[in-house]
Amino acid sequence: MNGGMGDTSYASNSLVQQKVISMTKPIAEEAISNLYCSTSPSSLAIADLGCSSGPNTFFLVSELIEVVDKLCRNLGRQSPEYQVFLNDLPGNDFNTIFKSLPSFLKRMSQQLGPDSGPCFFSGVPGSFYGRLFPTKSLHFVHSSYGLQWLSQVPEALESNKGNIYMASSSPPGVLRAYYEQFQRDFSMFLSCRAEELVTGGRMVLTFLGRSSEDPSSKECCYIWELLALALNDMVSEGLVEEEKMDSFNIPQYTPSPSEVKSEVVKEGSFSIDHLEVSEVNWNAYDSGFNSSDAVSDGGYNVAKCMRAVAEPLLISHFGDAIIEEVFRRYKEILSDRLSKEKTRFINVTVSLIKRE
Amino acid sequence: MNGGMGDTSYASNSLVQQKVISMTKPIAEEAISNLYCSTSPSSLAIADLGCSSGPNTFFLVSELIEVVDKLCRNLGRQSPEYQVFLNDLPGNDFNTIFKSLPSFLKRMSQQLGPDSGPCFFSGVPGSFYGRLFPTKSLHFVHSSYGLQWLSQVPEALESNKGNIYMASSSPPGVLRAYYEQFQRDFSMFLSCRAEELVTGGRMVLTFLGRSSEDPSSKECCYIWELLALALNDMVSEGLVEEEKMDSFNIPQYTPSPSEVKSEVVKEGSFSIDHLEVSEVNWNAYDSGFNSSDAVSDGGYNVAKCMRAVAEPLLISHFGDAIIEEVFRRYKEILSDRLSKEKTRFINVTVSLIKRE
Repeated sequence: MNGGMGDTSYASNSLVQQKVISMTKPIAEEAISNLYCSTSPSSLAIADLGCSSGPNTFFLVSELIEVVDKLCRNLGRQSPEYQVFLNDLPGNDFNTIFKSLPSFLKRMSQQLGPDSGPCFFSGVPGSFYGRLFPTKSLHFVHSSYGLQWLSQVPEALESNKGNIYMASSSPPGVLRAYYEQFQRDFSMFLSCRAEELVTGGRMVLTFLGRSSEDPSSKECCYIWELLALALNDMVSEGLVEEEKMDSFNIPQYTPSPSEVKSEVVKEGSFSIDHLEVSEVNWNAYDSGFNSSDAVSDGGYNVAKCMRAVAEPLLISHFGDAIIEEVFRRYKEILSDRLSKEKTRFINVTVSLIKRE
Repeated sequence: MNGGMGDTSYASNSLVQQKVISMTKPIAEEAISNLYCSTSPSSLAIADLGCSSGPNTFFLVSELIEVVDKLCRNLGRQSPEYQVFLNDLPGNDFNTIFKSLPSFLKRMSQQLGPDSGPCFFSGVPGSFYGRLFPTKSLHFVHSSYGLQWLSQVPEALESNKGNIYMASSSPPGVLRAYYEQFQRDFSMFLSCRAEELVTGGRMVLTFLGRSSEDPSSKECCYIWELLALALNDMVSEGLVEEEKMDSFNIPQYTPSPSEVKSEVVKEGSFSIDHLEVSEVNWNAYDSGFNSSDAVSDGGYNVAKCMRAVAEPLLISHFGDAIIEEVFRRYKEILSDRLSKEKTRFINVTVSLIKRE
């Protein structure tokens, strides 16, 4: 993710991710309501894993606190203390989050009123594919659009030439390597969280995923195939080394609902409360009801969103000299495709309960 | 504090602060040993308040973990999980801390060996003059060279013309305003921590302080008087507006041991285990046993140390145009004085136990 608050930052280009959080919010709200009613902790510990930095960082957590607070008022109970852990990798821009915390807390306390419990925020740097919190110290875990990122690029992708992700032209071994990396990673994620959550604790996870059982289906691979097109054009013009292109792969896996379910069942620590699929337009400004500039300039919006997410990966592999040109070409390709077809991201959301 | 890792950063100019932590370490080690032996928690929560960023940030905490781990081996007990909260103001450079965390954790786990409990670090942005943690969630609190910083510049310092801190020429009302601000702030600090610590929990606090009962004594005020000299020289040359100089005051109070004791007794939540005074040379490189360049260049070292701490305060009041010149003059004044006299910072350390 790009840090800071500038034009190419994640903070300024994460409307798709915010829409997804809004869409899946009812599932998280139901889960935390049930959790609160069944356990009534005096201090409620919530972790948001892969919080990134920007407007989305506080968005869901503040909604969850509001839900619990309202519930307490309705039940005539005292509002709990809230302990919120914002987690992301150590390179995330926590300084920007922390600088905006005082004004966020002020707004929230005005909104909730004087009877609301105090909120204690902290930042937790580290990979969620390892332990992050003490044993049985969390009540609720949320993660949105983080878990499709693998802990590493899968090994043995040498044969994935000309592609930067799973594609219809990828050999079967490539698809298998990606899937196995997902299985290892997600299984590790589940067993770490199982240690950290109290019995009855809840977890709501949204993946960028797919609905099809075909791992190279267009619905999940197309967005990266178009970026590969831009890169391959630059290879053919001698602007990018072919070898560099062939050794670049995106460390992502977009699972189907049944693949998510299968890992949960295998790992065994959680029961599934809900498992849902939803969709969001690539161009988050396109709600289907208007035709403003933001919609017509869809290629621009989508390219900026993808740049905010993928630029650090591209820079660390290709250097920064090619960045402007890659994203200029990507934007053109995206604009062309978006004028001809409706393209959507698929979200897989799972709501889990920690077993005894 | 100046962020980052550069030449004027706090990280590169905090040897005095590190020496102070080293000197007072035995008190903290004894306190955490007693705490562990009397409570044996399976998860031990430690907070370092005013952690800043740089080599000092992990220094004491890693020593404390080592002490508990050794104790566990000697007692044949399983090492606890460690939860470490690093606190400072929201503008602190947490990104630099977090980026160095993975390599620190690796070194620590090699040093402690495989039987040591896992360590979970988080960053907590906020003022320690308010609540930072849930009720009864901490076992041990440490703070070194943070608590002499007041929550704000005391009000009603208009008569403190020509000075930037308490000085022998300050009117009595100025000294009183400083002391009353210290009393309000430290009392608030104690009552917040009393809520957050478990019964029997421990707290070891080191102030930049004084041994004399005279609040304007040279041992605590001289370092700022010399900076005021540099600023007044610039006023007389028309480089700094007199009005700007007259309205600038350092938000610091360096208490005596009896002033610290008095607030602890009045607040009532803690009993005092130890109360000690120690000293450290202004020039941390001067150990009294050598005469290297670092010693002879004492003015340079002290000016850099003070710049790393005070530059943001000066910039926010005077703007950044005067900074290089102020510190050039300050360095010259310091070099001159250090060649003629031995000057020391006084440390007041108090070790406290949370009552029932």
